[in-house]
Amino acid sequence: MSRMLEEIRQQPETIERTLVSGLKRMEAVRRVLEKRRPKLVILAARGTSDNAALFGRYLLEIATGIPVSLAAPSIHTLYEAAFDFREALVVGISQSGESTDTNVVVERAKSQGALTIGITNESKSALAGLAEHVFLVRAGRERSVAATKTYTGQVAMLYLLAHALGGQIRAADLLRLPEWTAAALTLEPEITALAERYRFMTHAVVVGRGLNYANAFEFALKMMETCYVVAERFSSADFLHGPIAMVERNFPIFLFAPPGVTAPSMGEMVDKLRSLNAETVVIADAANKSIAARATRQIVLPARLAELYTPIPYIIPAQLFAACLATVKGLNPDQPRTLQKVTRTL
Amino acid sequence: MSRMLEEIRQQPETIERTLVSGLKRMEAVRRVLEKRRPKLVILAARGTSDNAALFGRYLLEIATGIPVSLAAPSIHTLYEAAFDFREALVVGISQSGESTDTNVVVERAKSQGALTIGITNESKSALAGLAEHVFLVRAGRERSVAATKTYTGQVAMLYLLAHALGGQIRAADLLRLPEWTAAALTLEPEITALAERYRFMTHAVVVGRGLNYANAFEFALKMMETCYVVAERFSSADFLHGPIAMVERNFPIFLFAPPGVTAPSMGEMVDKLRSLNAETVVIADAANKSIAARATRQIVLPARLAELYTPIPYIIPAQLFAACLATVKGLNPDQPRTLQKVTRTL
Repeated sequence: MSRMLEEIRQQPETIERTLVSGLKRMEAVRRVLEKRRPKLVILAARGTSDNAALFGRYLLEIATGIPVSLAAPSIHTLYEAAFDFREALVVGISQSGESTDTNVVVERAKSQGALTIGITNESKSALAGLAEHVFLVRAGRERSVAATKTYTGQVAMLYLLAHALGGQIRAADLLRLPEWTAAALTLEPEITALAERYRFMTHAVVVGRGLNYANAFEFALKMMETCYVVAERFSSADFLHGPIAMVERNFPIFLFAPPGVTAPSMGEMVDKLRSLNAETVVIADAANKSIAARATRQIVLPARLAELYTPIPYIIPAQLFAACLATVKGLNPDQPRTLQKVTRTL
Repeated sequence: MSRMLEEIRQQPETIERTLVSGLKRMEAVRRVLEKRRPKLVILAARGTSDNAALFGRYLLEIATGIPVSLAAPSIHTLYEAAFDFREALVVGISQSGESTDTNVVVERAKSQGALTIGITNESKSALAGLAEHVFLVRAGRERSVAATKTYTGQVAMLYLLAHALGGQIRAADLLRLPEWTAAALTLEPEITALAERYRFMTHAVVVGRGLNYANAFEFALKMMETCYVVAERFSSADFLHGPIAMVERNFPIFLFAPPGVTAPSMGEMVDKLRSLNAETVVIADAANKSIAARATRQIVLPARLAELYTPIPYIIPAQLFAACLATVKGLNPDQPRTLQKVTRTL
């Protein structure tokens, strides 16, 4: 069994550990943020952590009404733009805490007056040393190059950050995430069987929206790095603004279709793709089965979920799919060619 | 000849007309923005206009030090998050001015206290009616579904906005853009010949960074919508954080490699891809030929450009390439399947 699959399966425990220890420390952070409420939140990250940041962007804006910007690191590292960040909260997110450019953004922002937070899996990392407040993801050592449990750990931490910023996130709901994650993991045999069908898939599109937009990026990234599938990712709205022209008979498209405000547009997208004879795979849950039924194939989570809490349970089948597809394709998902666990860029 | 190619060739005139008329009106806007300097700029757009916004994000942050956020429209249209935008400038960008979601973002932002600007090609559009200040792109009617001259017109307008916000953008430099664009257009015969080689290309990656990051998105979008090539787009740093694992012998990768602060990292990327036996096509100019020489194929603009002014001239060969490749593939770039000129999404 791959380490990736092993680490995917650990997530009910890693998420629980992360939430429980995070909730304990969060009261202190909440008090700091209450006194010094930021007018702008900037999230800085690369790779999978940047996908967690993309989730954070939606969650924080929706839950707190504070505008969020995803940092473009080169503006800080190469162009060295001068900002006044005295009313900003800058959050660096990095599994290893050693992502050079993320750290430069945090360091410069601190010197420009920002309050800084580091979300990382490594308590002794450079990021943990740099940031004023550290949100420690307690995922345990991640050995697979393809990040899985640190992604959901970072997402869990972003819920806690939204909570600390006054967002309507209830601890009691968050603490059900491990249970919903465990329920999603029961789909493994079904997904193992499903992956066979995609043995010769060379390209794909993943569509997500709103709170699950980041999951589209993360699913695509997992397919790119572990299965070498050229996987694009779009919101359903952006997809209609041009890229849908690529779609022909049998073009494979994976869609996250949770219940909630994005459901009608995802339903329309599934129907549109069906009329183009595309191959659609819909990830939905028991609360939103009807959209799934209209797709070529469906992965239906057993729980009934509220939209706000779908992102973690919904990424589980996607992670499983990527790990299984890599195996079906005869690849080792733990050692993608060309990659190393820690990537340093400026 | 396709309308797309016709409209690509019109750009020296459309850019000049847009800049000259824009510069005349800009003094008044500059005075408004001086009195009410925004603490945050939010850019809202979809499709090609969103790629112009991505350029604007880099330009405005680099030139003015004001943080910029690219709006996630669904947060406004579907989640209806409540923001306090009294210190924000919200800029809607839309060729037609009839992009439903972009307009909703501008409308809501206005009611939340924002100063609003609309950048559009249509003076009588809904966006022009909504926004307090209208920056009119004078590209003339765009008849091809694939946007080209409105993209460069929007980019030109974003330079004017940076200028109005106090950025170091000299009008005299801007007014040379039509000349540099005309010089780039002289590459058409060379690019027509080059496109043949990619007749059977089904997927590709486009890499750009910093001020040319948006061009990577725009080039990829043009290849997706007119050539049905599954074209991904990454910054060179993001590409190293996972997706590079996809690259095998002959994998086609297009890179924007202008002179300036991003040049070293683009040079390293070209060398890395060469070591993986990928097929690389580098777009560079006379000031930065050495990187191009290390690629499989190269497109070298005749002018010597300063980095700040590369984005418009550099997108020209990319537009030409997409239009030529569509023809080589037997497709009509003016009528991509499934698309219409105006896309309305919420």
